[in-house]
Amino acid sequence: MTEHEITSWIARRSGRVRGARVGIGDDAAVFRPDPREELVFTSDLSIEGRHFRHTDAPRHAGSKAMVRSLSDLAAMGAEPRFALISLAAPEQRLRDFYRGLLEWKVPVLGGDLSASDRIICDVTLCGGVPKGKALTRSGAKPGDIIYVSGPLGGFAARQYHIPPVPEPRLALGLKLRGRASACIDISDGISLDLWRLALASGVAADVHDVPVAAGATIEDALDGGEDYELLYTGPKGLPGIPIGVIRAGRAGDTPFAPRGYDHFAYNSQR
Amino acid sequence: MTEHEITSWIARRSGRVRGARVGIGDDAAVFRPDPREELVFTSDLSIEGRHFRHTDAPRHAGSKAMVRSLSDLAAMGAEPRFALISLAAPEQRLRDFYRGLLEWKVPVLGGDLSASDRIICDVTLCGGVPKGKALTRSGAKPGDIIYVSGPLGGFAARQYHIPPVPEPRLALGLKLRGRASACIDISDGISLDLWRLALASGVAADVHDVPVAAGATIEDALDGGEDYELLYTGPKGLPGIPIGVIRAGRAGDTPFAPRGYDHFAYNSQR
Repeated sequence: MTEHEITSWIARRSGRVRGARVGIGDDAAVFRPDPREELVFTSDLSIEGRHFRHTDAPRHAGSKAMVRSLSDLAAMGAEPRFALISLAAPEQRLRDFYRGLLEWKVPVLGGDLSASDRIICDVTLCGGVPKGKALTRSGAKPGDIIYVSGPLGGFAARQYHIPPVPEPRLALGLKLRGRASACIDISDGISLDLWRLALASGVAADVHDVPVAAGATIEDALDGGEDYELLYTGPKGLPGIPIGVIRAGRAGDTPFAPRGYDHFAYNSQR
Repeated sequence: MTEHEITSWIARRSGRVRGARVGIGDDAAVFRPDPREELVFTSDLSIEGRHFRHTDAPRHAGSKAMVRSLSDLAAMGAEPRFALISLAAPEQRLRDFYRGLLEWKVPVLGGDLSASDRIICDVTLCGGVPKGKALTRSGAKPGDIIYVSGPLGGFAARQYHIPPVPEPRLALGLKLRGRASACIDISDGISLDLWRLALASGVAADVHDVPVAAGATIEDALDGGEDYELLYTGPKGLPGIPIGVIRAGRAGDTPFAPRGYDHFAYNSQR
């Protein structure tokens, strides 16, 4: 199997990128942006043995690799436009992993391929958002209600086994545009992600309730990762579960110690 | 060292991205494109032990990782606009590798960071090109002169040791816009890259001469990789070294067997 054969295989299975002038198969891809939009970019590395298990089926691991980046677009209120996929994998596992990536129907504009003894994948997604409408972490104001989009800790309670692969909250992200004051996805546990939102916004947060997923403990809900629910702030009446209130105070002051997953805090619990 | 500390360290050292609305530190970055431009995207994975040696200094390996993608932009006639850097590395080697990446002064819009036992880096570059002006592989026509930008095989002759790190031909790429009919960078050996250009253009190629770098053999020049010179076609009088002529014929018919590096042809010579 040559790189040329694999890229042809991918090009046949990927949808067409709107605005693509040159796609897979040249030195680089060429894209003509919609002049009404700003572009939103996120990249997430998924490494076998670190972000998923060697025993996970490649298809599920690929699907989850795409979800990590889609969830970032959801948190910005962006719609997926295209993916750039850099994948190194053993030849016999490459196609199944790619099938998982493509399950979410994001068309592929380009990327890189390499042989490797283990699967390494970097998913870069480009999303589109009307000018000035992207949601950020930094807009929360005292008095805003704090919401989450669903119960937390379910993935941690299942010891991060896939399937099921969590579903990114893209439709909710679009609904929150122009309504939420700040938004973040809960990828590393609400204890860490609420701290990040409060710190970026220069505010403090009170929380009266954290919804816990069936089968999960309160620790799973606070510090577990990869729920991919959205955490956001804004006025009364937004969709989702109200859990607290933003208040003036020391930036990042929340009721939780930020104990969630930090990829470089080697003394963290996992 | 936390992820937050590292991203702050990077943000301080990176230049500002023109058009950035939200940069490092949110769920994703937001970029407002220049409406006169098309955007050019390329991604290249660099994995320790595969694309560079464990014994290479991290700074040189980082510099070379960036060159691979810059050379793709050069081949498209694009100017670098920003980088998305996904990097997994041992903590003690991460900053030096990043310093190498930043040597080429491409501002960083975002990316991902992870701890890892070996260095894994995916460089995604976005370049800009005036609408419709990107160079591609597919425009070569019978009668066009074939050029290379410099002698070949030097990197292979040095057994791919770095430094020196090859220099991407960005200034030449800009000069060739609107003048060259097709262009590709020689990353995998001219025997393979000329075949790719001829195949994409639906033409054949005659070659009368291949310039060989000092100390290199003709095999190094034909099949060696990572020279990062440009290979391009067009009328008489373009800058560079004329090496042959495009002719009508079977698509991809060239005087060389395409024996250069194919990342998935496991029976290739390296």
